[in-house]
Amino acid sequence: MGYTEFMIEGRNAVTEAYRSGKPIDRLYIQDGCQDGPVMTIKREAKKHDTPIKYVTKERLDQISELGKHQGVIAVTAAYEYAEISDILGNAVSRGEPPFIFLLDGIEDPHNLGAIIRTANLAGAHGVIIPKNRAVGLTATVARTSAGALNYTPVARVTNMAKTIEDLKKEGMWFVCADMDGTVMYDLDLKGPIGLVIGNEGEGAGRLVKEKCDMIASIPMKGDIDSLNASVAAGILAYEIVRQRLRG
Amino acid sequence: MGYTEFMIEGRNAVTEAYRSGKPIDRLYIQDGCQDGPVMTIKREAKKHDTPIKYVTKERLDQISELGKHQGVIAVTAAYEYAEISDILGNAVSRGEPPFIFLLDGIEDPHNLGAIIRTANLAGAHGVIIPKNRAVGLTATVARTSAGALNYTPVARVTNMAKTIEDLKKEGMWFVCADMDGTVMYDLDLKGPIGLVIGNEGEGAGRLVKEKCDMIASIPMKGDIDSLNASVAAGILAYEIVRQRLRG
Repeated sequence: MGYTEFMIEGRNAVTEAYRSGKPIDRLYIQDGCQDGPVMTIKREAKKHDTPIKYVTKERLDQISELGKHQGVIAVTAAYEYAEISDILGNAVSRGEPPFIFLLDGIEDPHNLGAIIRTANLAGAHGVIIPKNRAVGLTATVARTSAGALNYTPVARVTNMAKTIEDLKKEGMWFVCADMDGTVMYDLDLKGPIGLVIGNEGEGAGRLVKEKCDMIASIPMKGDIDSLNASVAAGILAYEIVRQRLRG
Repeated sequence: MGYTEFMIEGRNAVTEAYRSGKPIDRLYIQDGCQDGPVMTIKREAKKHDTPIKYVTKERLDQISELGKHQGVIAVTAAYEYAEISDILGNAVSRGEPPFIFLLDGIEDPHNLGAIIRTANLAGAHGVIIPKNRAVGLTATVARTSAGALNYTPVARVTNMAKTIEDLKKEGMWFVCADMDGTVMYDLDLKGPIGLVIGNEGEGAGRLVKEKCDMIASIPMKGDIDSLNASVAAGILAYEIVRQRLRG
């Protein structure tokens, strides 16, 4: 679990990192550097929304690990994904029925971070996210998770519907958040459970929803459409917590 | 309720707006403008984190309302705050016991927007925020509230503890979110209620907490410290909703 930050130093290395699609979390550039290669890096940074900090040569020398920065250092992060077996093992070792969050297409890193934070505090054993069409574990996610990423395992899968099918064979039940569901207070959410939260705009995919045993909705009284995805995940997760505690 | 965007056109007017501390939401600058006054405006924009869009003269002419932009247009927003009497009136007209959110020092505009969104959907009658040491109604708050700001009245007060005292005389009860409180499921949260949410880092102020009738905590099982403020507000608000519906 967790992640390690590492440095990419020098103009060629940083340009190459951008070319290969590596996610750069931030960039240090020496004050006053205006030559061609540095301008190319700045253009890449702008394209990828990388925050740039302009610092003195002395500061760059301090940050540098290899001592060959040539005026440019990029910081990137390597995150380790867990396996689903790690998540199930986590439940076994705590002697609890599994409680897993499945996020079907969360796109906003702040939402993903906040949901991992909630998963940790609600006592969930792990989080499952899809490989495609969703944000992965970036530096923003790590920061927004407020440290939870160091404790709560996050696994990545290619096919969420298939994963649900497999976990059902292990005896788990699945509840999907959706506005057209049964009011959550009327559902039995105890036992080994997977909480499925869909995409911010479109909810969970049809195939994923069809695999779920229950569709739960949060009662809404207001004038607007829907709650923020991380708030909705928190409210549903804590209905599960309440039923587990007070059932 | 709600807000109106308006334009500030021309170099002097925009510079003056920054000098007087008016919040500028975004800035349009004509492509290629590099003279002194425009550079001054750019520096102010950087200092205040105002997003800049570089556009053609033709586009600026379209955006302009007064036709005297001189290459620079700032967009600002005027938000109307409600009065506490509007919030109480809202409860009366809906024939419900008042349910009000009191935010004692939320600093992050995304949190404030998400909480106003939650307040709307949980059926709260309004939100009260402090005048000082907290974020006000900015464009980011409006956007993050997903439209809720157009429906849910937000009032601003100088002294939150005094406001609680006054509202207690109207028969309201106050519950403050705090990690050292009674588990929320064990509290009676029905009736006319004010939900007090504190600052992201430090929680509610001592004076405010002392005025509250109950201190409620969300049960936490995890390894880290606390939930995101807007998630915590959502979980507590929906425990109130549950008790009102099912209590």
